[in-house]
Amino acid sequence: MSSATPEFGPPPVDAIDAAALDRLFRTARTPSAWSPAPVAEETIRALYDLVKLGPTSGNCSPGRFVFLTTRDSRERLRPALSAGNVERTMSAAVTVIVAQDPMFFDNLPRLYPAEEARSWFAADHGLAEETAFRNATLQGGYLILAARALGLDAWPMSGFDSLKVDEIFLAGSGWRSNFLVNLGYADGAPATPRGPRLTFDEACMLL
Amino acid sequence: MSSATPEFGPPPVDAIDAAALDRLFRTARTPSAWSPAPVAEETIRALYDLVKLGPTSGNCSPGRFVFLTTRDSRERLRPALSAGNVERTMSAAVTVIVAQDPMFFDNLPRLYPAEEARSWFAADHGLAEETAFRNATLQGGYLILAARALGLDAWPMSGFDSLKVDEIFLAGSGWRSNFLVNLGYADGAPATPRGPRLTFDEACMLL
Repeated sequence: MSSATPEFGPPPVDAIDAAALDRLFRTARTPSAWSPAPVAEETIRALYDLVKLGPTSGNCSPGRFVFLTTRDSRERLRPALSAGNVERTMSAAVTVIVAQDPMFFDNLPRLYPAEEARSWFAADHGLAEETAFRNATLQGGYLILAARALGLDAWPMSGFDSLKVDEIFLAGSGWRSNFLVNLGYADGAPATPRGPRLTFDEACMLL
Repeated sequence: MSSATPEFGPPPVDAIDAAALDRLFRTARTPSAWSPAPVAEETIRALYDLVKLGPTSGNCSPGRFVFLTTRDSRERLRPALSAGNVERTMSAAVTVIVAQDPMFFDNLPRLYPAEEARSWFAADHGLAEETAFRNATLQGGYLILAARALGLDAWPMSGFDSLKVDEIFLAGSGWRSNFLVNLGYADGAPATPRGPRLTFDEACMLL
């Protein structure tokens, strides 16, 4: 896909092809309903193998992912869900609890040996919390796009009781839930057109 | 890229190709140095046109993006940068301030007309803050991957004084800085191997 380097002019561009841009962004949509098709465990493992490669601050990698792959495990989630999110979750192949480990910095001597980074976070609870939330959220964004890259559809949700989710699923781990992503294969096209987006001039400045 | 639907077995998979997976995740790296090649304004606009399509909670779209495209604008950023981030920023083609608009909910009657969502956030400052931070961060993650999709390299950074950045660049807008992303074209391969990542069993649970 790379073009030859021109002698003058823009640098060689090694962009992804139009079909991939469509699948990730341009024609991708949050589904309205799920097909009953299951998601293979190897697809879930392939998904994490992409997600883990996305960049985080100082490779801190605070994102944690709880894959609810059975009807039973999703039934345990039901009391924590907003009413509007129950059916789309119970009918999904997989629900991912995107979480963060507030003690992520204990892995830094291994993940980022170049600096003594562990102590920056161990000494500053607010910085650690913010770093965990920001970077686990980034990793959740990578998960949404990596799922699409693998041919899955993603239905992210933040309508749930995070304290309940932590109590039901994360009590032993110390991890904290951030948002949820239903995964599966969409049943047909979404029922409604895509919502409008802000224009460049509304959302951006060029300085 | 889609295969025919089999009568039995897994659903048709419309995954992106190996070259695109490489560019986005598998061989993608944060650069060690920048080439002097500029980034065209049309590339910046194409970037936002992808980023804006990524999903946010109730289409709330709180992410704001300030593109510093000139040496002068980046010089104004210098006093807010951590020492280690100065050279990689001054030598980049573009620096993006990924920010959020804490008043994002004023756009909801237009962005998400299906529900009276504005009042949920107008009445709950904590929910509005958390929603703005989470979803602008997701949009920042989309920006990192969309930049790679367009053939750019991305160098995200959180080592900076966000209050100073807000004062210097965002005072008139009310937007708040979240993190920075340098954009450009890498000068060669990174100087160091990719950092290790957590294994599936360390970062994931399968329930």
